[in-house]
Amino acid sequence: MSTPFTYNRLSKNDAACLLVDHQAGLISLVQDFSPGEFKNNVLALAASARYFKLPTILTTSFENGPNGPLVPEIKEMFPDAPYIARPGNINAWDNEEFVKAVEKTGRRQLIIAGVVTEVCVAFPALSAREAGYDVFVVTDASGTFNDVTRHAAWTRMATAGVQLMNWFGMACELHRDWRNDIEGLGALFSEYIPNYRNLITSYLAKK
Amino acid sequence: MSTPFTYNRLSKNDAACLLVDHQAGLISLVQDFSPGEFKNNVLALAASARYFKLPTILTTSFENGPNGPLVPEIKEMFPDAPYIARPGNINAWDNEEFVKAVEKTGRRQLIIAGVVTEVCVAFPALSAREAGYDVFVVTDASGTFNDVTRHAAWTRMATAGVQLMNWFGMACELHRDWRNDIEGLGALFSEYIPNYRNLITSYLAKK
Amino acid sequence: MSTPFTYNRLSKNDAACLLVDHQAGLISLVQDFSPGEFKNNVLALAASARYFKLPTILTTSFENGPNGPLVPEIKEMFPDAPYIARPGNINAWDNEEFVKAVEKTGRRQLIIAGVVTEVCVAFPALSAREAGYDVFVVTDASGTFNDVTRHAAWTRMATAGVQLMNWFGMACELHRDWRNDIEGLGALFSEYIPNYRNLITSYLAKK
Amino acid sequence: MSTPFTYNRLSKNDAACLLVDHQAGLISLVQDFSPGEFKNNVLALAASARYFKLPTILTTSFENGPNGPLVPEIKEMFPDAPYIARPGNINAWDNEEFVKAVEKTGRRQLIIAGVVTEVCVAFPALSAREAGYDVFVVTDASGTFNDVTRHAAWTRMATAGVQLMNWFGMACELHRDWRNDIEGLGALFSEYIPNYRNLITSYLAKK
Amino acid sequence: MSTPFTYNRLSKNDAACLLVDHQAGLISLVQDFSPGEFKNNVLALAASARYFKLPTILTTSFENGPNGPLVPEIKEMFPDAPYIARPGNINAWDNEEFVKAVEKTGRRQLIIAGVVTEVCVAFPALSAREAGYDVFVVTDASGTFNDVTRHAAWTRMATAGVQLMNWFGMACELHRDWRNDIEGLGALFSEYIPNYRNLITSYLAKK
Amino acid sequence: MSTPFTYNRLSKNDAACLLVDHQAGLISLVQDFSPGEFKNNVLALAASARYFKLPTILTTSFENGPNGPLVPEIKEMFPDAPYIARPGNINAWDNEEFVKAVEKTGRRQLIIAGVVTEVCVAFPALSAREAGYDVFVVTDASGTFNDVTRHAAWTRMATAGVQLMNWFGMACELHRDWRNDIEGLGALFSEYIPNYRNLITSYLAKK
Amino acid sequence: MSTPFTYNRLSKNDAACLLVDHQAGLISLVQDFSPGEFKNNVLALAASARYFKLPTILTTSFENGPNGPLVPEIKEMFPDAPYIARPGNINAWDNEEFVKAVEKTGRRQLIIAGVVTEVCVAFPALSAREAGYDVFVVTDASGTFNDVTRHAAWTRMATAGVQLMNWFGMACELHRDWRNDIEGLGALFSEYIPNYRNLITSYLAKK
Amino acid sequence: MSTPFTYNRLSKNDAACLLVDHQAGLISLVQDFSPGEFKNNVLALAASARYFKLPTILTTSFENGPNGPLVPEIKEMFPDAPYIARPGNINAWDNEEFVKAVEKTGRRQLIIAGVVTEVCVAFPALSAREAGYDVFVVTDASGTFNDVTRHAAWTRMATAGVQLMNWFGMACELHRDWRNDIEGLGALFSEYIPNYRNLITSYLAKK
Repeated sequence: MSTPFTYNRLSKNDAACLLVDHQAGLISLVQDFSPGEFKNNVLALAASARYFKLPTILTTSFENGPNGPLVPEIKEMFPDAPYIARPGNINAWDNEEFVKAVEKTGRRQLIIAGVVTEVCVAFPALSAREAGYDVFVVTDASGTFNDVTRHAAWTRMATAGVQLMNWFGMACELHRDWRNDIEGLGALFSEYIPNYRNLITSYLAKK
Repeated sequence: MSTPFTYNRLSKNDAACLLVDHQAGLISLVQDFSPGEFKNNVLALAASARYFKLPTILTTSFENGPNGPLVPEIKEMFPDAPYIARPGNINAWDNEEFVKAVEKTGRRQLIIAGVVTEVCVAFPALSAREAGYDVFVVTDASGTFNDVTRHAAWTRMATAGVQLMNWFGMACELHRDWRNDIEGLGALFSEYIPNYRNLITSYLAKK
Repeated sequence: MSTPFTYNRLSKNDAACLLVDHQAGLISLVQDFSPGEFKNNVLALAASARYFKLPTILTTSFENGPNGPLVPEIKEMFPDAPYIARPGNINAWDNEEFVKAVEKTGRRQLIIAGVVTEVCVAFPALSAREAGYDVFVVTDASGTFNDVTRHAAWTRMATAGVQLMNWFGMACELHRDWRNDIEGLGALFSEYIPNYRNLITSYLAKK
Repeated sequence: MSTPFTYNRLSKNDAACLLVDHQAGLISLVQDFSPGEFKNNVLALAASARYFKLPTILTTSFENGPNGPLVPEIKEMFPDAPYIARPGNINAWDNEEFVKAVEKTGRRQLIIAGVVTEVCVAFPALSAREAGYDVFVVTDASGTFNDVTRHAAWTRMATAGVQLMNWFGMACELHRDWRNDIEGLGALFSEYIPNYRNLITSYLAKK
Repeated sequence: MSTPFTYNRLSKNDAACLLVDHQAGLISLVQDFSPGEFKNNVLALAASARYFKLPTILTTSFENGPNGPLVPEIKEMFPDAPYIARPGNINAWDNEEFVKAVEKTGRRQLIIAGVVTEVCVAFPALSAREAGYDVFVVTDASGTFNDVTRHAAWTRMATAGVQLMNWFGMACELHRDWRNDIEGLGALFSEYIPNYRNLITSYLAKK
Repeated sequence: MSTPFTYNRLSKNDAACLLVDHQAGLISLVQDFSPGEFKNNVLALAASARYFKLPTILTTSFENGPNGPLVPEIKEMFPDAPYIARPGNINAWDNEEFVKAVEKTGRRQLIIAGVVTEVCVAFPALSAREAGYDVFVVTDASGTFNDVTRHAAWTRMATAGVQLMNWFGMACELHRDWRNDIEGLGALFSEYIPNYRNLITSYLAKK
Repeated sequence: MSTPFTYNRLSKNDAACLLVDHQAGLISLVQDFSPGEFKNNVLALAASARYFKLPTILTTSFENGPNGPLVPEIKEMFPDAPYIARPGNINAWDNEEFVKAVEKTGRRQLIIAGVVTEVCVAFPALSAREAGYDVFVVTDASGTFNDVTRHAAWTRMATAGVQLMNWFGMACELHRDWRNDIEGLGALFSEYIPNYRNLITSYLAKK
Repeated sequence: MSTPFTYNRLSKNDAACLLVDHQAGLISLVQDFSPGEFKNNVLALAASARYFKLPTILTTSFENGPNGPLVPEIKEMFPDAPYIARPGNINAWDNEEFVKAVEKTGRRQLIIAGVVTEVCVAFPALSAREAGYDVFVVTDASGTFNDVTRHAAWTRMATAGVQLMNWFGMACELHRDWRNDIEGLGALFSEYIPNYRNLITSYLAKK
């Protein structure tokens, strides 16, 4: 028989969301997703975090330099979230203020996404794992230079016990049951999954 | 020396835009673009047509059947446009009402996009060429089953003298000079080209 | 203004269908389509030819040797079609019996598909063009060793005035108007386009 | 020397098959397989489950909404199978009726496939692993939005001890020895593997 | 026999080079080449133009805005070249100063490259063709959003009689004979073709 | 510090080679390598096994049926090798004669390749692991239907402790030191790695 | 009706074969084919030329420098062919000795292949077209740096009236009828098309 | 909760860099990166090693034979580094001099890159792991024949506890904090990441 396994499952009461370095300059380096897909995925993750009322922490690296400012859509979606503009730490987890903000959420499940995957995502993901957190990386809201780099970064993180998700899987795992709010989840999917919206459009047309 | 050539160039005073069968059901058949990219391209084309005040004609095929209704975003963007729900003609140009609507625009340059490329786009494109129109197909706002099919359809159309464009090239050719309206064109690009928005974000942050 | 163009359009009253060398052995050489897709496309083309009652001609090359017999599904779909088992001509058009069968149809539009694209399809396509026929190659029911070879063969044929189609475009161009037979065409598409069947399934469920 | 390993091998006496959410609407979201390949794989899995007389359980999510009904072919292949139309649970394993149906089979090996991979397949697969079952996911009968998402979902499941199979490997592992039924297995492969059918066609022609 | 053909061949005495909008911001939009390849190709083209002493014209669009400045390497390679910072014309050929600079070269063969392909390259290429020039587009030093857009732009240009080259083909066609300068051409290739440098390294090691 | 690790390294004194079902019919099913590459890889593996004098075992499945005979090149390379034509066992390890042949070699390292990867390779590989052998699968001499299937099969095998190699890595690991036989290894690489032969050709030309 | 067309068809009595710069160093630059495929294609073309007894001309560029010597297999296959080691002309057609050798064949159909496609193939192909020859480029025995470069080179050549072939299509067009020599052509295909050999192997096994 | 994990993090005080067999001949075998990208990655790794003053060891295999000499750029960057020209050992770790050079650095973290990945990189990486070192392979500065081979090699190394990095991730992990040297790191990235340089260019233009 198979070895024992515990399903470490996302819970909206125990998860926090960390959005790392989704800055205008850095995003222009991303080439493992088309720009349109990547923007959609990042906003879908952000909208999901807001929908599930997850404590969310924003952080940037050198936002007054070439890396550029945080993309304004994210800033606007989380006006009251802790916002740590790191003065120099490449790994957000090396920044005390950031770690304190994480600890203050009281959550043990950390959902992380950012740019670029092998640095801004992988470094705090590995640090958080070392600190005992359950870590879930949203792969499709994290971008980097090319597929080779992404694949290597994923392997490093998965080996460390990080769970690799996409934003849709994350949202579904957090929601658990459509009956908790059919309209809300439907609206979220309709906004960020064009073909799901098409299904709804066709469905409503027939009623 | 090379053979003589006349640059048949889009003009906002002589172009009309035909959006053919962007219906919720049919779009779900499209696999030569990711759904997110395709949605973005179609809306960008529609927004460009509106921005340049091009006479625009909407048409659908069997919208009460499995093909589904026109996607609502397009409907909303052109509340006053001629809207021809074809009762059965597969080639929109076989529909008299459609051709009359085209003729009524008085335009000789037809910008066409639709779903699926080799049928809903190629058929009226070839018919319009036969009728003496200059035809410009917006390739990235036209989708189909796969790359092989797209390639074959492009070859058929290009051989017929159809000019293959993307929405961005179309918008640039119509605009001619940034000084005609810097803010307007910038807003259009910012909305539909994520990395162009990033350039603007970084630029404004530094001023 | 653009150069004059005549839309040379498929007509069910003027088209014949030539299925060339879809033999069990030769099909195993095809690598530019997945085997599942290719089988589906070939059967869809055959079913379309039957649906539109196109005169259809079957031919094979060396069917008692390694090339293997015609795939049985095709044979069964056209029990009464002329069937020319060529004793050696690589180009079917070099076979008198084949050309006579074509002439006997009285049709001037030839729809051709076969295996492999650059030989069994391209050779008779070019010969038929020379003989003054309008030629339409069904690209997705014609297979070959790889994409490079396909691309070169397409270029050679397109330069010769061959029109490149896919089976779906061919069927739509032949049908012209859904009202000619909604159920029949719907059944054809439902059988060979899985996502179209899904649209119908969802549509009927909601009625 | 290598670490000890136990080959946890599928047995037709200990396996059950769970088909999760192969619904007409949801399938139209699948883009990591061509629609033709995916349909073929799903039907091949279903036919294999029936051939090996595996207890099979069908389940759907919100089948009266946009997700659409179970595709009719599957329904017809298992007229007597437990059919759980879940009223809202995203993870089928959260549905008591579903788990009871699984337990009632008395089987400890669960073969799972469904749409979409990272949710409808991965969630019950992880839950089943936690419940002590041996889990085998049929990767090519499970579809999702794109390759990135599939890769992440596979990594999550493999880490949890899920065994990743394709339908062909599953059928071969269940059958063990051709001599158990040469004709039956040959017919199954002939129906769903076009090039295998071609081998048989050529073989029979030569006898 | 084939139709007559005149080989319109690049000559270093009749060619000029137009580098259009290789600006820091615009280049970050390019996704149809990896950034490393694209940079290498652009610099190789520039170095070739300098090596063959081709009259070269630089132009930019809105270089004080988000499009960003011309990349400094190019500026430095052509300190004395005409430099037209266009105040608003999207098509460089709409700018009188630019056209005058072209005319002043007295050359009839125009080598064009730029960002993005379907606009900054295609528009002046088509205009120059209309003005009677022989036009050669260096495809691998011209970038755009994706492969689909590139393919469409190439088709439009090729139809207009534009010759599609890569920088290496251009350099070889201009040089004609190695004996004109073995060391110089060897150094050029060694700098921009890593595997050619490797051949030289291995070759020299053995002497 | 990292966890302890033992490098389980191929040794020509402890390795045997198992070539499973490289039959003419089955190979025609392979689509995850081009036929030319696959043939080259399989012959390279066979030539390496012979070069290193590894005990080699050949086996086939149903070679008188559609699966076809072992490809003749392999048969000729190992005229004296044990040859087990399995009457029905899909997993070669289920065949007593095969296992006895393996045991008789006295080797504990098994190099396995075959067609198709997820069945003819994976099944005996997992069985051999269970029996305590060190297992090395030569991935590029093992073929299957497509990349998805290959990826799943690799994951299943790697999880079981199988080491994934290519034929070149295998040969290098067995050889250890060029000085053991420079000419022999050079000849092997020259025969099966075209660009290595090119290096040698250029090298010798310069001496 | 379609425009008139003359099928300019390869004839073994009117074709000559020009193999340009298949040198050990230059071939190592080829990246648009895998090395194994490319070697196979080049040798297949050479073997075909020999089989059809086509006058064949070999030429190299700077074979004593980094470009390296002609690959020995080709040299050995044509011991008596004219062999022009060009001292510096990049375009072989600029070399008088080469053109004289071509003229001396008395053939009007030139089959050309070489490395790299856009230079060593395209330049003499365009020159030969200008000189009134019918030109057939064997695309799969001609290699270059990447797909983008190949695509551009093909477009340039096709526009000039060059016919794009693969070696298999060329051989079939030259042979015309299997009955001219079944065994000979079968042996040629068996040697260079692995899956064709598999068909033959299976076929013979059954007799 | 998740299992405990220790983040084994690169430190510039504990890391050494091993560059294995980046020789002119061997690099010409690499086909899993474009030559331009690969050259850039290797030089970026070397420049990073120098920037962080990591003890660096160079080694080559048979550099007087077809493998060719170490590429001169690397040699020049590390004039004083230990340089071990191995007389025959394929695995550098089998060479005593090499291992002694490693031990002499006193470092426990070994960063390894080389050509080809599955041999020159994987063999010493596995040996070093066995010897108790922490091993980090720089995947994008290590090249091989194709993606399949790379994927298999990565799996073998990751299973052995090797951490897979890219050069950019390595540099960021070593640097830890931009404030340690903003200009230096910026210059490094500007040199080897074209789009990062573009960001800087645009940024500086605005100041």
